[in-house]
Amino acid sequence: MSASRVAPDPDYESRVHASFARQNFMTLLGASITALGPGTCEITLPFRRDLTQQHGFLHAGVVATLADNACGYAAFTLMPADASVLTVEFKLNLMAPAEGEALIARGRVRRAGRTLTVAEAEVSARRDGAEIPVAVMLATVMALHGSSDAPKETRG
Amino acid sequence: MSASRVAPDPDYESRVHASFARQNFMTLLGASITALGPGTCEITLPFRRDLTQQHGFLHAGVVATLADNACGYAAFTLMPADASVLTVEFKLNLMAPAEGEALIARGRVRRAGRTLTVAEAEVSARRDGAEIPVAVMLATVMALHGSSDAPKETRG
Amino acid sequence: MSASRVAPDPDYESRVHASFARQNFMTLLGASITALGPGTCEITLPFRRDLTQQHGFLHAGVVATLADNACGYAAFTLMPADASVLTVEFKLNLMAPAEGEALIARGRVRRAGRTLTVAEAEVSARRDGAEIPVAVMLATVMALHGSSDAPKETRG
Amino acid sequence: MSASRVAPDPDYESRVHASFARQNFMTLLGASITALGPGTCEITLPFRRDLTQQHGFLHAGVVATLADNACGYAAFTLMPADASVLTVEFKLNLMAPAEGEALIARGRVRRAGRTLTVAEAEVSARRDGAEIPVAVMLATVMALHGSSDAPKETRG
Repeated sequence: MSASRVAPDPDYESRVHASFARQNFMTLLGASITALGPGTCEITLPFRRDLTQQHGFLHAGVVATLADNACGYAAFTLMPADASVLTVEFKLNLMAPAEGEALIARGRVRRAGRTLTVAEAEVSARRDGAEIPVAVMLATVMALHGSSDAPKETRG
Repeated sequence: MSASRVAPDPDYESRVHASFARQNFMTLLGASITALGPGTCEITLPFRRDLTQQHGFLHAGVVATLADNACGYAAFTLMPADASVLTVEFKLNLMAPAEGEALIARGRVRRAGRTLTVAEAEVSARRDGAEIPVAVMLATVMALHGSSDAPKETRG
Repeated sequence: MSASRVAPDPDYESRVHASFARQNFMTLLGASITALGPGTCEITLPFRRDLTQQHGFLHAGVVATLADNACGYAAFTLMPADASVLTVEFKLNLMAPAEGEALIARGRVRRAGRTLTVAEAEVSARRDGAEIPVAVMLATVMALHGSSDAPKETRG
Repeated sequence: MSASRVAPDPDYESRVHASFARQNFMTLLGASITALGPGTCEITLPFRRDLTQQHGFLHAGVVATLADNACGYAAFTLMPADASVLTVEFKLNLMAPAEGEALIARGRVRRAGRTLTVAEAEVSARRDGAEIPVAVMLATVMALHGSSDAPKETRG
């Protein structure tokens, strides 16, 4: 990813935050966007006992959720203002147990196309000040042009 | 998958249910195992507004969570009693919006190996009595032999 | 996949065979289409020593090539006459060594959309009359509408 | 990937080259290893007309073959001398047409485990002196310990 990416919509930050705020599932998990730039998005989730799998680690589904959102919103930053974002597919490799104080997913765009964007995310666990990579995702994200990202019932 | 699969552990059902019950995240989501056989596992989740993404559909992470568990526990039914189950990786294709009264993930084993198992899951949405396929997963699951599936702190 | 799929282009068979014939790589490998229907495609490759990897089995890249084509052409059968077919991405799980007299890839469409199609393929090895599953693919295929499938230099 | 990776087998280079040389399929394609280090592998393939798909670009199967080998041999560099390498699965995103004078696949290890290694590869096309990324792969590779990488018939 080039450092010189420019977001076509100068107001992309508020557009991403508004979309994220509409994701009720993020509120339930307690996740938030902790960094955002043209083609990049970081999402952080503090560890919680009610998000774990049978071994006491954060569930792979929680890891996937964070990585999916980091990829999707990284892609969304490069879409025009009238586009909606949709995940086509993703693949997640789990590399280490998701345990620690927090989970951080960092997404970045590999290739932005008009319709399809290829994005990747690395998910790390913060433990005692260090960051341990726990998963990596490779995803395909779609732009739906002329389709507001807000659900129909909330459009003015 | 052959209809003649035999689970090496005759007590596989209680082993799977006990592992599932230890997944706090399943309790949070409100998901439950609704069918189980040698090499197959079905998980059902009633729709809930707090599990949605920005368009009001169930979040892709929720879909992934259900499919991951359906694949993992389908694989787990064919593992010996002293093995623990671990997701290596999965790939999920989203085919339609996850909206309806409930989400049903049906996992089945494609190839069970001693260490690695290939499993797949189809996720459907129940709407007005019909079932609409919304996603499909292809996953690699690992057996950790001689490793109890319970977390350390709860082992007797 | 429903048995009642109807190809929008009644002439889909000749369109698929013409596209396949333009794939020089298929000629090099010695692969051919051995079955075709609306939403399905079977490709067969006789074993050859010059297609092997370091252990003497058919190379994973050969397996991927066959599966990719089986998925792509299964999708292509359901596209209109003026569309071109393109692989967006695929994931391949290798389940057993690709050894035997021939490799058979059977692709089928899981969900056909206007732009994106989800397809899957199973690849089997024929050994002594039996068929052993060696790999499974899950793929995303794209239709480029209003774009002939023939390369520019051969268009009339 | 850290720059400080150390290959456990100091003779890893000759081991990788010997394995690659046993891959008849590489000879058929005309591919060669053009760079190698602990945890990294680069493979280059000059464009050839008999490796193309229907639009005249290099076939997605050729791209997958190169990326698979780049991932597999990147992983192999970090395995002990008595281990054999095997691809478990891979996922490939195609980002641009594979056209140009040559295709270059650069693989690197993301996480090396005793049994499973996660590796990724970027495939680029060289056109008029520039390099255009055309595909990205995320793969799982397995080490078979105590299993020579040479086929049985050539072992002394």
